Amino acid sequence: MSLQEQELQTVWWDNGAVCLIDQRVLPHQRQVVSCQTLNDVAQAIKTMQVRGAPAIGCTAAYGMALVAHHSQASTVSILLDELVQAKAYLDAQRPTAVNLAWATERMLRCAHQYVERPSGVTTEPPRTVQLAACLLTEAHAILAEDLAMCHAIGDHGASLIPERGHVLTHCNAGGLATAGYGTALAPIRTAHSQGRPLHVYVDETRPFLQGARLTAWELQQAGIAQTLITDNMAGYLMQRGEIDCVIVGADRIVANGDVANKIGTYTLAVLAHAHQIPFYVAAPSSTIDLTLATGDEIPIEERAASEVTHFAGQLVAPVGVAAAHPAFDVTPHTLISAIITEQGVITPPFAIGLRENVRRKP
Amino acid sequence: MSLQEQELQTVWWDNGAVCLIDQRVLPHQRQVVSCQTLNDVAQAIKTMQVRGAPAIGCTAAYGMALVAHHSQASTVSILLDELVQAKAYLDAQRPTAVNLAWATERMLRCAHQYVERPSGVTTEPPRTVQLAACLLTEAHAILAEDLAMCHAIGDHGASLIPERGHVLTHCNAGGLATAGYGTALAPIRTAHSQGRPLHVYVDETRPFLQGARLTAWELQQAGIAQTLITDNMAGYLMQRGEIDCVIVGADRIVANGDVANKIGTYTLAVLAHAHQIPFYVAAPSSTIDLTLATGDEIPIEERAASEVTHFAGQLVAPVGVAAAHPAFDVTPHTLISAIITEQGVITPPFAIGLRENVRRKP
Repeated sequence: MSLQEQELQTVWWDNGAVCLIDQRVLPHQRQVVSCQTLNDVAQAIKTMQVRGAPAIGCTAAYGMALVAHHSQASTVSILLDELVQAKAYLDAQRPTAVNLAWATERMLRCAHQYVERPSGVTTEPPRTVQLAACLLTEAHAILAEDLAMCHAIGDHGASLIPERGHVLTHCNAGGLATAGYGTALAPIRTAHSQGRPLHVYVDETRPFLQGARLTAWELQQAGIAQTLITDNMAGYLMQRGEIDCVIVGADRIVANGDVANKIGTYTLAVLAHAHQIPFYVAAPSSTIDLTLATGDEIPIEERAASEVTHFAGQLVAPVGVAAAHPAFDVTPHTLISAIITEQGVITPPFAIGLRENVRRKP
Repeated sequence: MSLQEQELQTVWWDNGAVCLIDQRVLPHQRQVVSCQTLNDVAQAIKTMQVRGAPAIGCTAAYGMALVAHHSQASTVSILLDELVQAKAYLDAQRPTAVNLAWATERMLRCAHQYVERPSGVTTEPPRTVQLAACLLTEAHAILAEDLAMCHAIGDHGASLIPERGHVLTHCNAGGLATAGYGTALAPIRTAHSQGRPLHVYVDETRPFLQGARLTAWELQQAGIAQTLITDNMAGYLMQRGEIDCVIVGADRIVANGDVANKIGTYTLAVLAHAHQIPFYVAAPSSTIDLTLATGDEIPIEERAASEVTHFAGQLVAPVGVAAAHPAFDVTPHTLISAIITEQGVITPPFAIGLRENVRRKP
């Protein structure tokens, strides 16, 4: 692992604890959050100490491993019940990104597979301890696979970046949003490593400022040229011919290709369409949810109004003003030029390509 | 003048000083800036202690009166030279809004007209003092006319607000942006005073947060229902059918109907067009500039990058990150449903209506 990737490590297991870079205080402070309990992990997800759909998935996987690791259950059956409850608790923390439920589901499936395996003659270590070890291995695998998928997204997506390389991105779909390397930032990183010209326009992404705080920081670390803008400047830049393509991440991609992503993504897609600029979505296959037919069915998380009335912790609006805070929006597939996964580039009609992508998943 | 309008007084003359509500510290602090010199006035405009095209116009008019009031010139000819220099200095502070140059031009014209008038037999008070008094009267007239124009905009524009009354506005085109009552907020205020249902969605308007700090405060004072949103939420609300119309102000309207206004306005216009939502521009005739044929000719002010990377003196992005800060954008006339002035509602083709509007100006 290169130094750069080490720097961007967002979640890891450390001797019975789930550790995270606290993404609320970046870029000015580098604080590590050490989650000792399931509740710590749930709070870290809820309060966005960790954010980004794939990173949340990895964190939740380790959360399940943590439950097993510290469990006092006397039988694997009791431990299984604890894991079922833990999954429900974790899934409820953030409803929009599907990677969370995907990861906890995979961990549960792993547990069930262990339980269904014929137990050997040895009883040492106890089966609950064996199951816990099994789950930790699975969480490590999810993390490793996520990192590998990000690199594959980079390989597939780099060729889509137009020659001049003026790319607009929104929120943070970078290393911090994943196990490392990123989704939307992966094609950018790969193109940069190939020595291609690049200039990234970074939406600051209110209210949480993931663009200003996290993406700008990642690009700076990677030495990639960038210009930070407020979200409302994107249209102006497109009108002036400054943007060659838009690449964003995704929190959920449903069967027809509709995409839920950070609030403001839909506006960018409308703008890109009006200016005939390619609009790309980059995400690992764990983001695809074929159980929903269209984006209308995706639950949109409504977060606290105080996150809108405040800027960097400081109240900016008059006391008592009502504010809305939908944390995500849905971009219809008709506005999307292509979806980049670790398996390749999916072009319309997305329904077919997404089904095929899921079918091929290892 | 009602209490409410008094509260919204943005600029006034006080015994040889130009006084302003400092709009940088609202809504949490009510501070009055007292400009004693031309340089004070220029700085207040430059640093956005006063902002909003019509309010800047009124401030600049008083700035010209201030120069005459404190002048040591021995002849009206010397005073005229000082006024010509003062106009150039003031005009250079903010290039996009035309009301600034319009107001200083009108003040200069007033001075010339005074000079060209046959002088009477009396020489007391000295002619320079008479000219100063004349200019103060003209500045008062500009302020009074601006207030009257805002009320007329309210009368003409209220009928355009659809029945349910869900209006989206951007930046602050309210009382604080004018001599009082506002431009974009005028139809909203008038509809409210008629007892009609209204709900205003307020774009916070980064980077200066005029929406969160000023518009939200004005609407709260006026008792009008509102919801504050980040700029990137407007598309989501339109997609969900929450917005019935958009009303914004203007910094310059050129001959073909293209409109310069606060950065982000163009994005709203593209979104409104994509959702078939009426998009209205409200502005007094002093905002119309027939000397420019199209919006391409409007100078766009580029402000300091630090206003994007910082909030309230606090750095939110990593140290050293480059940022863009175009303060305005241009909305092409093809995206505008109607322009509301004090004279009435202008519909496409705007070139004809705007010429007619200017011809009829008293």
